[in-house]
Amino acid sequence: MNDQRILEPLRKLGIGLSPPPAAVAAYLPCVVHGSLAFVAGQIAMSDGVVLHPGSLGNQVSIDEGVDAARRAALQALSALRDALGGSFERVERILQVTVFVASAPGFVDHPKVANGASELVAEILGDAGRHARGAVGVSSLPLGAPVELLMTAAVEAA
Amino acid sequence: MNDQRILEPLRKLGIGLSPPPAAVAAYLPCVVHGSLAFVAGQIAMSDGVVLHPGSLGNQVSIDEGVDAARRAALQALSALRDALGGSFERVERILQVTVFVASAPGFVDHPKVANGASELVAEILGDAGRHARGAVGVSSLPLGAPVELLMTAAVEAA
Amino acid sequence: MNDQRILEPLRKLGIGLSPPPAAVAAYLPCVVHGSLAFVAGQIAMSDGVVLHPGSLGNQVSIDEGVDAARRAALQALSALRDALGGSFERVERILQVTVFVASAPGFVDHPKVANGASELVAEILGDAGRHARGAVGVSSLPLGAPVELLMTAAVEAA
Repeated sequence: MNDQRILEPLRKLGIGLSPPPAAVAAYLPCVVHGSLAFVAGQIAMSDGVVLHPGSLGNQVSIDEGVDAARRAALQALSALRDALGGSFERVERILQVTVFVASAPGFVDHPKVANGASELVAEILGDAGRHARGAVGVSSLPLGAPVELLMTAAVEAA
Repeated sequence: MNDQRILEPLRKLGIGLSPPPAAVAAYLPCVVHGSLAFVAGQIAMSDGVVLHPGSLGNQVSIDEGVDAARRAALQALSALRDALGGSFERVERILQVTVFVASAPGFVDHPKVANGASELVAEILGDAGRHARGAVGVSSLPLGAPVELLMTAAVEAA
Repeated sequence: MNDQRILEPLRKLGIGLSPPPAAVAAYLPCVVHGSLAFVAGQIAMSDGVVLHPGSLGNQVSIDEGVDAARRAALQALSALRDALGGSFERVERILQVTVFVASAPGFVDHPKVANGASELVAEILGDAGRHARGAVGVSSLPLGAPVELLMTAAVEAA
């Protein structure tokens, strides 16, 4: 896919890709091997602080959850692009997005929250961004994040 | 795999494949790319209503959980078949099934619930249906479903 | 990768690979197909009993969680090696590790727990062990385990 053509809808949305997440000691933000790429779990951060901490059905509203999911998806795309040498050129397809939503036991609107991620990915990447998705409610997430997102993509082999 | 030979055990079980889940706006029920297929999270529905709503260890019995897992697996197979043009012909292997079980904190019988899915898939597809599995307990699921199931399969490339 | 060279750091750590998990009726400890391997969810067992039962933020300390994650990772590597005929020779890369941590709602230290797994895998397999990771908090796990770990690897096709 043409990298600039993908960055264009982002500009129109008035948003940019977040800087790619930093590599950590024991695992990587994104592993590319052959024709597959696996992006590590992303949570939405802003200036080093978790965005909208808490859980859905408790402190966090659906709109805040949608925002967190959208930003986590942006970070995942950023990690993917970075692992591919700073371009979306080799991205063929987003295969799967799994959205873990920190949720109170009675919460049922995980799809609304996860749509924040799915719609953004489809908006940016078009047909190549239409993925299979899982959305589940979990008891808690790292650093108190309301959403954690994992992404698997097909890429042109190097 | 021969499509009719796969539908045969279903007929013997007195069950049919559910109609494939409808495509939704931002994501797809099943993405096939190269030799892999990713089925989106399936929850058991009956006439547009979630089957056995609630969580295991609370309102939902193990038998009901098993039934929900079994039907979610049927829907996943149906989504897979539909994405492959209405036939199991190209299915080579079910690689992985992840079963998320809405569970009270003290619940420990996730494997029993998940067996509802694993046994059905193995029964229908034989050796090609024997998969790696994860079974975990989550705080809540979309629409109050007791089980959500994700499936990854290897398929003959088109 | 050279099998003996991989077993060497384990010996230095004073630990051995656990015996591979037994096959169960409806699913397999590890499915290898083409150039991918999927390891089923592993929980840390010792002499047939779950290690450190309970959840993080409740009965289980972070150190115990780290230990459970580390042992679950060892079992996953053992299942992978067993499915490859008893050798790591064909392992090219650990692609993804997903760590489900049974957690109280307020728990936030999932990354510390999951590092028990990630660091061990990286220590044993070196660069080939550096993976993408997800770490999420779930309400409960099979048999009361504090940690369940799933692993996906790239392998040399047979």
